[in-house]
Amino acid sequence: MSDLYLRACRGLPVPRPPVWLMRQAGRYLPEYREVRSRVDFLTLCSTPELAAQVTVQPVDRLGVDAAILFSDLLVPAPAMGLGLTFDPGPVIDRPVRTVADVRALRVPEVREEIPHLYETIRIVRRELDGRVPLIGFGGAPFTLAAYLVEGHGTRSFETWKRMIYAAPEVARELLDLLARVQERYLVAQVEAGAQAIQVFDTWAGLLPAGDMEEFAVAPARRVIEAVKGTGVPVTYFALDVAHAWEAVATCGADVIGVDWRSTLSGADAALGGRFVLQGNLDPCVLLADPDTVSRRTRSMVEEGRRLKGHVANLGHGILPGTPVECAQAFVDAVKRA
Amino acid sequence: MSDLYLRACRGLPVPRPPVWLMRQAGRYLPEYREVRSRVDFLTLCSTPELAAQVTVQPVDRLGVDAAILFSDLLVPAPAMGLGLTFDPGPVIDRPVRTVADVRALRVPEVREEIPHLYETIRIVRRELDGRVPLIGFGGAPFTLAAYLVEGHGTRSFETWKRMIYAAPEVARELLDLLARVQERYLVAQVEAGAQAIQVFDTWAGLLPAGDMEEFAVAPARRVIEAVKGTGVPVTYFALDVAHAWEAVATCGADVIGVDWRSTLSGADAALGGRFVLQGNLDPCVLLADPDTVSRRTRSMVEEGRRLKGHVANLGHGILPGTPVECAQAFVDAVKRA
Repeated sequence: MSDLYLRACRGLPVPRPPVWLMRQAGRYLPEYREVRSRVDFLTLCSTPELAAQVTVQPVDRLGVDAAILFSDLLVPAPAMGLGLTFDPGPVIDRPVRTVADVRALRVPEVREEIPHLYETIRIVRRELDGRVPLIGFGGAPFTLAAYLVEGHGTRSFETWKRMIYAAPEVARELLDLLARVQERYLVAQVEAGAQAIQVFDTWAGLLPAGDMEEFAVAPARRVIEAVKGTGVPVTYFALDVAHAWEAVATCGADVIGVDWRSTLSGADAALGGRFVLQGNLDPCVLLADPDTVSRRTRSMVEEGRRLKGHVANLGHGILPGTPVECAQAFVDAVKRA
Repeated sequence: MSDLYLRACRGLPVPRPPVWLMRQAGRYLPEYREVRSRVDFLTLCSTPELAAQVTVQPVDRLGVDAAILFSDLLVPAPAMGLGLTFDPGPVIDRPVRTVADVRALRVPEVREEIPHLYETIRIVRRELDGRVPLIGFGGAPFTLAAYLVEGHGTRSFETWKRMIYAAPEVARELLDLLARVQERYLVAQVEAGAQAIQVFDTWAGLLPAGDMEEFAVAPARRVIEAVKGTGVPVTYFALDVAHAWEAVATCGADVIGVDWRSTLSGADAALGGRFVLQGNLDPCVLLADPDTVSRRTRSMVEEGRRLKGHVANLGHGILPGTPVECAQAFVDAVKRA
């Protein structure tokens, strides 16, 4: 049933929850590693034929109910005027630290300046040929700003949080600009063929509850509302926000991704029962064995039946060391539950 | 008022909340860096005169209302039969991976085998001379196990979590042993002169809500109850557990530490209003400027007035790059609020 995922996102009746895995096009798959052994990460992202190939791999291998574009949250950075490399995580060559740095950033003409991304989407749609829908994605402004200010991933993003506390007006100007960039970037993904969008706010959970709405959820909501204007369903996934569900509930998305920490029912209660939820098996469970994966996945699906709607997924990206048979056990357990 | 901290821990009336900072004996203090420039971290931990000196430094410098023993969570590891170095975080030479590894661990005679720790406590008590109480501390079994199994700090402690999911009986045996070690280790701290104990469960938040009680809180409760038997107040501090306050509420401690994510009032409501709470200013606020620190600290103290009791602190350890004047602004703002 090719529209299972899209129906579930809209809260429509479905015979079973759809299932996909965050980072399902990734290193745990031998066929991904084969492609990746020939090109570096950024080349893979920016070569439409290859990016399309790895996007489709988990659909063929695991039988997931949606494909997600192979890309990276930082892909728009070079078109904004920033140097980007991977080592292995993203590294920004001259991090954004001052109001002058913010004002030097450009809001790119995304179709002309990041053509490879939109070409990848067109190729994927052709290769999927209606089997499953394609999810496009991008970073929420808070999470993009975290990388742009810090220059690279860290445990606590102290430089970025210091900017929020010490120079909130600079932080707001950066978030405003990133919201404009991401509106364009994601709406153009839909226009190129993406049938749903997921907005990742990976680092939002670093904020205290009292700052969450202003600095993370409100900028994300601008992007989400722009994308919803195109008519496709939108998922907002913020990691580690159990202290701030009240703020997250204002994000405006159709679907809220829940990380592995919270129970689906606990998150649902805190969110007022108003959302389709996505998630949320601990990716570390897939490091165990297929029986353990099946047992815990069945229990997750059971809990999901009591929600407004449920998209089965992990509670964070699949880990590189995951045995493929455990990923398969996860998908199969959802389909049989 | 030398017993301010102890009275607040017991929920007794106090004229203002006591204040101390997690990791207050640390690199942000020039006098600490001076001592540390002469010896490595493990030597500093294991040399009673030096450990006592840095324990007392923040009392003299900042005027905090409690001292906390300078030590490390992994200090008991060598006496259990494990090789321990710092690089700069703790590294265990042969990580605990199998049931045989668990059974090879010893429950040490702590007074004889870790004499430097107890000697440090005696020196600190003498030097403090009743000015402020001394807090002893140790790791909760879950968090110690995370280091022992993983061998070092990581972002997600995948090896340890895999053990919990794939071999829960081995994980339980390890946790049981660590609970016995920590009971001895912390009761002996009280007998040597520690006037309160804080149990750190830094990594408990990595567990899904459904596994929190069994694998983190229950083992911690054993240790906490043993320490409470000595008559001193006990604080349980688990980071990033907003998804599982219900489990945390069963920990048996007098005081629950709240990290910077949750609001004090939100945590209090979820914990049933039954605990004195400690916390919880974001340590990153202290990277800003004294005015910002004072403003946010006053607001924290205001929120604390509505609790059963409040021990003012940060929501995690003070960061090495914190300007001393910001640490001072934090302490002063609590005292003046």
